[in-house]
Amino acid sequence: MTPETVGFVGLGIMGEPMARNLMAAGHKLIVHNRSRPKAENLAAEGATVAEGPREVAERSDAVVTMLPGPPEVESVFEEMLEVAGGGTLLIDMSTSSPILARKLAADALEKGVGVLDAPVSGGDVGAKDGTLSIMVGGREEDFERARPLFEAMGGTVTHVGEAGAGQTVKACNQIVVALVIEAVSEALVLGERAGVEPAKILDVLSGGLAGNKVMEVKREKFLSRDFSPGGKSRFHLKDLGIALAAARESEVPLPVTAIVNEMFGTLVARGMGDRDHSALIALLDDWARPVEKGDGQARP
Amino acid sequence: MTPETVGFVGLGIMGEPMARNLMAAGHKLIVHNRSRPKAENLAAEGATVAEGPREVAERSDAVVTMLPGPPEVESVFEEMLEVAGGGTLLIDMSTSSPILARKLAADALEKGVGVLDAPVSGGDVGAKDGTLSIMVGGREEDFERARPLFEAMGGTVTHVGEAGAGQTVKACNQIVVALVIEAVSEALVLGERAGVEPAKILDVLSGGLAGNKVMEVKREKFLSRDFSPGGKSRFHLKDLGIALAAARESEVPLPVTAIVNEMFGTLVARGMGDRDHSALIALLDDWARPVEKGDGQARP
Repeated sequence: MTPETVGFVGLGIMGEPMARNLMAAGHKLIVHNRSRPKAENLAAEGATVAEGPREVAERSDAVVTMLPGPPEVESVFEEMLEVAGGGTLLIDMSTSSPILARKLAADALEKGVGVLDAPVSGGDVGAKDGTLSIMVGGREEDFERARPLFEAMGGTVTHVGEAGAGQTVKACNQIVVALVIEAVSEALVLGERAGVEPAKILDVLSGGLAGNKVMEVKREKFLSRDFSPGGKSRFHLKDLGIALAAARESEVPLPVTAIVNEMFGTLVARGMGDRDHSALIALLDDWARPVEKGDGQARP
Repeated sequence: MTPETVGFVGLGIMGEPMARNLMAAGHKLIVHNRSRPKAENLAAEGATVAEGPREVAERSDAVVTMLPGPPEVESVFEEMLEVAGGGTLLIDMSTSSPILARKLAADALEKGVGVLDAPVSGGDVGAKDGTLSIMVGGREEDFERARPLFEAMGGTVTHVGEAGAGQTVKACNQIVVALVIEAVSEALVLGERAGVEPAKILDVLSGGLAGNKVMEVKREKFLSRDFSPGGKSRFHLKDLGIALAAARESEVPLPVTAIVNEMFGTLVARGMGDRDHSALIALLDDWARPVEKGDGQARP
């Protein structure tokens, strides 16, 4: 039984186009956003605006949340779980914590409420085009019920396991993307400083075992050092924090993720949080700069 | 003017099939290998066996070397440069040091001898099939002269810059491959320990920005933990050592390459040097193992 009335909480750069795709697929939408104008946009297209998450949950068969991170997810779910009745389905599509996802699913189960963790990859372009890749954790029956919603928003939809598994796979994804950005950055900075044309390095590496999607998608950013986003550094920093917390819970050390997390932290602290995550190379550029006269001297 | 008589020094797992492809393209071969039986194999197919690098250089228009690493390259070139006359072309296709490559090219230039650094990627399969990717540093005129030889051994041949540039690009390649192996390993160990099926993680990640060739080529090794080589860990350790030395010369810090180098060092020290480089994940498996009772206790 496909949910007819769908709630949507969180109408940011990702949430707004995702909500729009649900409407285009024929669902009746009840929407809420912390700042109201975003919700009014969708109201003009036929959605109903609700005062808060509680009202959204009361009036919907299923609710999708698309929020900045774990604290917002926890607080919105707390409100929704107070009122959600048996048969309601709550679907968190934020990039959030697998630990929190498992806790929320357990809390909801007691009330007969289904919860799915269903983070996405594919960015704002994928959100607009409805081509997101969606990785879903939770019970098979809840997944099947939500499938038509996912298919309205995404291109590839994969049920990867029990509660939390979606967020775990998203954490794995963000680890690989971050470390590949660092890999390409270290190679390029070395090659450039040794006098090789960077475009040639990327060309040769693309053809072999070193080939990767980051090098292909971010090619112009690496070559021009123009870091207009794309995926923002501060979001990637948040995601690596989630990955490291999940790793700690699973008693797994992730030595390189830990370092790249520190590097993204430095990048954000230097005011580059809104730049594309490929700006990681700018940190290496800086470290590779010749030391100026007077540096490293005893202070007067 | 294509070199007619081609010398070949170093008939290992890569060199032997490369030499064979040169013969198949119609070149007369003068070969030498430290242990003679390998050379005798090729003699049976029409090559002439020489006593040492010096004799190879004396009798050839061009010489290809395919040796374990910088010390062997330096010693073989020293012998060859004593006798090589004007117009001889020496082509080192080993994975060696860009610093050494620049030095050898400078030494040779004084005697009118051309030198190219032309390391390859593609492994023993690429060597056999003549589909190696060859990245070449050196003078344009030497590159053009050597081109027919490269085309007999490789699929993609790229002139990437002046002397040393071939080795620099190879170092870049080995950095990216090593760091991507580590990236996939950290993601998989986290995901598996959190209870997600590893094949699903690889499937989902392959479709997006995390996609990479390592994940594709090494998929079965990661899933089965069967690390039959493939590219051996001890060679990759050697290659990262070369990359870090080149980085030091260029005054570039490579923080993650340094750590992954240490990890390969540990892997080799533990007797895994002849295992595939994807065995890096075995080190993380080990670190992620639950601490046994009694560990971390004061010794009696």
